[in-house]
Amino acid sequence: MQLSKQDLQERADKVYDTIIVGGGAGGLSAGIYLQRYLLDSLIIDKGKARSFWMQELHNYLGLPPDTQGRTLLKHGKDHYLSLGGDLLNGYVEEVVDKGDIFEVKVKIGRQNSTYSIFRAKYLIAASGIIDNLPFVDDMQNVYEYAGYNLHVCLICDGYEMADKRVGVFGRNERSLEVAFSLGWFTPYITLFTQDMFEVSSQFRDRLWEHEYELVEKPISKFVGENHQMTGVQLMDGSVIKLDAGLVSMGSQFHSGYLSRLNLQTQGENLVTDFSCRTSHPRIFAIGDLKLGLNQVVVAAADGAIAATGIWRDIRRERGVKRRLDVDSVVLAG
Amino acid sequence: MQLSKQDLQERADKVYDTIIVGGGAGGLSAGIYLQRYLLDSLIIDKGKARSFWMQELHNYLGLPPDTQGRTLLKHGKDHYLSLGGDLLNGYVEEVVDKGDIFEVKVKIGRQNSTYSIFRAKYLIAASGIIDNLPFVDDMQNVYEYAGYNLHVCLICDGYEMADKRVGVFGRNERSLEVAFSLGWFTPYITLFTQDMFEVSSQFRDRLWEHEYELVEKPISKFVGENHQMTGVQLMDGSVIKLDAGLVSMGSQFHSGYLSRLNLQTQGENLVTDFSCRTSHPRIFAIGDLKLGLNQVVVAAADGAIAATGIWRDIRRERGVKRRLDVDSVVLAG
Repeated sequence: MQLSKQDLQERADKVYDTIIVGGGAGGLSAGIYLQRYLLDSLIIDKGKARSFWMQELHNYLGLPPDTQGRTLLKHGKDHYLSLGGDLLNGYVEEVVDKGDIFEVKVKIGRQNSTYSIFRAKYLIAASGIIDNLPFVDDMQNVYEYAGYNLHVCLICDGYEMADKRVGVFGRNERSLEVAFSLGWFTPYITLFTQDMFEVSSQFRDRLWEHEYELVEKPISKFVGENHQMTGVQLMDGSVIKLDAGLVSMGSQFHSGYLSRLNLQTQGENLVTDFSCRTSHPRIFAIGDLKLGLNQVVVAAADGAIAATGIWRDIRRERGVKRRLDVDSVVLAG
Repeated sequence: MQLSKQDLQERADKVYDTIIVGGGAGGLSAGIYLQRYLLDSLIIDKGKARSFWMQELHNYLGLPPDTQGRTLLKHGKDHYLSLGGDLLNGYVEEVVDKGDIFEVKVKIGRQNSTYSIFRAKYLIAASGIIDNLPFVDDMQNVYEYAGYNLHVCLICDGYEMADKRVGVFGRNERSLEVAFSLGWFTPYITLFTQDMFEVSSQFRDRLWEHEYELVEKPISKFVGENHQMTGVQLMDGSVIKLDAGLVSMGSQFHSGYLSRLNLQTQGENLVTDFSCRTSHPRIFAIGDLKLGLNQVVVAAADGAIAATGIWRDIRRERGVKRRLDVDSVVLAG
């Protein structure tokens, strides 16, 4: 059930089989599988997964290619709740390993926040990442286009940018390297430094050789209408026309709550095995937090894989249902 | 486009970027990703993927839990064709590695068959498995219930069997081990040997300890109506009432066409790395053929991962689009 503040007291003493941090595609898929394994799970969701911002999922098998990310999430949430899973809107501040169980400290409510501790035997880290966006004075101007034709994922949306005039927004020279992969889809590329960093002469040579433009002046705003960005206005008032944008400014990893658990990482990504298990035997990581492809369908598959790994562990420990157990429930009912 | 016999001639000299053997969930997902990477692909489908037989996909994120497998496949096929991919109904007999390319020999048509050779740089083996089913005189009687409440996958359908009277159909003692995992969901289990093999006294002891029944007589047919199996009739005329069945009789791997390529296997499964790449650098394996969880969402994710690996390889080799190339197309158009 969807937990509200009133329900928290009765969950205080419960030890869940699994707490899932994050209610995006990965977390919901894991929750659906866990509930179907007759395990009890709690999803703690801070809201607005990365896929929430996607206006069109073009490449998720089985869904029409104009499906909004939030539609997928809504279906997944309803599905999970229909299987009896618990869902709480809250922000996980810390996870403490108490040996057999984890204590998960959650901040609930943005104003007049309260704090609760939840307990579980297993943890699935499914809290993902969120992309950094270009900085302009009025950030609402960026949100107007982000997820429409101001893209954050080349793999997802390269196809949509084919042969278009695309602006690439970086935060350092290295992040602008994506332009050369984007070059597979279109030759009309303009790179923006937003006056935040310098680029080397070698890099300039490569841009010249590729016929890519470089704009080093600061941006004042994006221009366009109806969520379709048509260009960028610079601080000096000039406008550069574009058909689409690709933001490559890095991401925030929502993994601060894991920081004291010393999990193995590569860069900021958690390292996992083929079962999505981290270096801690009872912590699994799925979706964008872990190494691998950042795609909705991969996160959903990770959820299935992690949930199955947890079920196998628990099944070995608890064994089978006995007739007496079931019969007694029937008699009691 | 959907290829017919008339179209084959003009495809004879083409070298596809990738040929995908199998048009199930994995193959279609791979095809969608490849086409969106502006690579050209051909899916060769013999028809009736394992998921085709699934009456309800209960655990695929984003789809209502009563979605038929064939509905998912239909959507995926339409999606793939809308992106310009080629699809051929045919049976792949052999793949020959010619160094830089693969030659794929395809039998087309069940009657009056013709044979064609197709060529590609990369190959995705997505041809999956199909489950062996119990043998009765009239196999139509088995098809009547298979995929409804005569299940083949504990992970998919354990939840549907909770606390029900379930018959487990094996082909040897080892295959009956699944009963003890099914025991997580229900204690009311009857195992059937169909008089095809003996079981050891140790195994009988375990069954006795678990209160599971063992039926060693041959089966004459399943009984039930409207695709709901309600029991099994033995050759001696007696009927054993059941609420559901779980078939555990092994599978046929559709991988004969790979046999001369000496790919690394574990059991009958192909071994792959995190990119779904087999021991051959230009052959990828996805879905049930490879080691891992046999789930539709995993196959779909595998397709995305394999397609991305292939795109990265080819991109490094071919480089970027040039303005001149695109402009000349525009001028020619």
